[in-house]
Amino acid sequence: MASDLKEAGGLTRLFVTVALEPGATVALNDGQAHYLLHVLRARAGDRVLVFNGRDGEWQAEIAMASKRAVTLKVGTRTVPQREVPDLWLVFAPVKKTPSDYLTQKATELGVARLQPVFTRRTIVTRINDERLLANAVEAAEQSARLSVPEIGAAVVLEKLLATWPQDRRIFFCDESGEARPLADAARDAGEGPAAILTGPEGGFDPAERERLRGLAFVTPVTLGPRVLRADTAALAALAIWQAVRGDWN
Amino acid sequence: MASDLKEAGGLTRLFVTVALEPGATVALNDGQAHYLLHVLRARAGDRVLVFNGRDGEWQAEIAMASKRAVTLKVGTRTVPQREVPDLWLVFAPVKKTPSDYLTQKATELGVARLQPVFTRRTIVTRINDERLLANAVEAAEQSARLSVPEIGAAVVLEKLLATWPQDRRIFFCDESGEARPLADAARDAGEGPAAILTGPEGGFDPAERERLRGLAFVTPVTLGPRVLRADTAALAALAIWQAVRGDWN
Repeated sequence: MASDLKEAGGLTRLFVTVALEPGATVALNDGQAHYLLHVLRARAGDRVLVFNGRDGEWQAEIAMASKRAVTLKVGTRTVPQREVPDLWLVFAPVKKTPSDYLTQKATELGVARLQPVFTRRTIVTRINDERLLANAVEAAEQSARLSVPEIGAAVVLEKLLATWPQDRRIFFCDESGEARPLADAARDAGEGPAAILTGPEGGFDPAERERLRGLAFVTPVTLGPRVLRADTAALAALAIWQAVRGDWN
Repeated sequence: MASDLKEAGGLTRLFVTVALEPGATVALNDGQAHYLLHVLRARAGDRVLVFNGRDGEWQAEIAMASKRAVTLKVGTRTVPQREVPDLWLVFAPVKKTPSDYLTQKATELGVARLQPVFTRRTIVTRINDERLLANAVEAAEQSARLSVPEIGAAVVLEKLLATWPQDRRIFFCDESGEARPLADAARDAGEGPAAILTGPEGGFDPAERERLRGLAFVTPVTLGPRVLRADTAALAALAIWQAVRGDWN
């Protein structure tokens, strides 16, 4: 008997890339097929949810399940497309496990784009783009998001600032020096695209801080009297911005 | 030549239990002694910072360093004692690594007390109190906190509610049903002690949710339109409460 394929949070959700409309056919990728066939023991007729970042969320049924491949047939739409608020997270990469957590939680918290940036004190010098994307996709599927965050190619801070779209305000988490509480700064900044910028484990160096503070589109902000790890600061800042300016109200 | 013992965030900070005043002697515990002697290669005369949750933060110098033991002599106070806001985190324990992560980050975010609670859908049935405390101490040391959060003994939800101090409002993160955005609810709740309550991976069951919603001191709150993991919800809620009602402004 056909069943709904469930996970802890409800019906299994899968991110796909093809257009979604009633009757559309979706060929799952190898990883997804393996997961359904061998972990969830799926069979023809079983139901999942799919989304592609453009067309909303749809019910789909397994039309064909062989030893290695799964094809879905799309049914009806369950949720219309809705965008996340236009918020970027610009972050200096940290070491592997914290990076996975940061990517997953930033995705749950509704970030539109993850932008890795290399700063002078960044220890990590290479980004594993595939891993970043895989973590973002999984978190988007499990958090009932209708899209996967864009992943920017990693760049050095100077290049990022030189090419920055100046209508997008950067809230720069800066523990030292004059800065306003993020909630106040976000509230006063009004509508418009935004970015949260956090540094590496060692923070930004004095020259970087001076450069950032000199830019009209940068607002230095504080996150309380305690010293936060880079990933804690990023997540706290995302949550606060969403509560004040985003889709949490 | 004597030096300041430093870590990534600055001078090494250690949580101790003895009273702190000029000239006081502090015998470090085995773990701390080992860390100073064998990781930081400390020697007599080297300087650290100490705090005990009561007397503020003080400079201290290594007075004696043998193969296995370290004794400090306290110098001058660097920061007067200041309390964190009266905010508790009541959380259903999750599996090991997320639990370490949650404890560390909740401590950085200034929580006054960590209270584990067992709910019907809690998978984890035993709390490692020592591990919880060790994580809290380390995070307090590294985040420049002046205190370590209290750690409550784990209890079942019903007992927790039956003995709850009713002047402490519980903000109950409830994804289903009528609820207000946390920022609004926290703002309107006014002054006074508070707690954030988050459930296990599977959420609260219907009977628990009904019980909680029936209590005058419980306020159901939402954290945006996406589904958050238990630890993400806890951290986001702590950050928002601190920004709206705590010491982040």
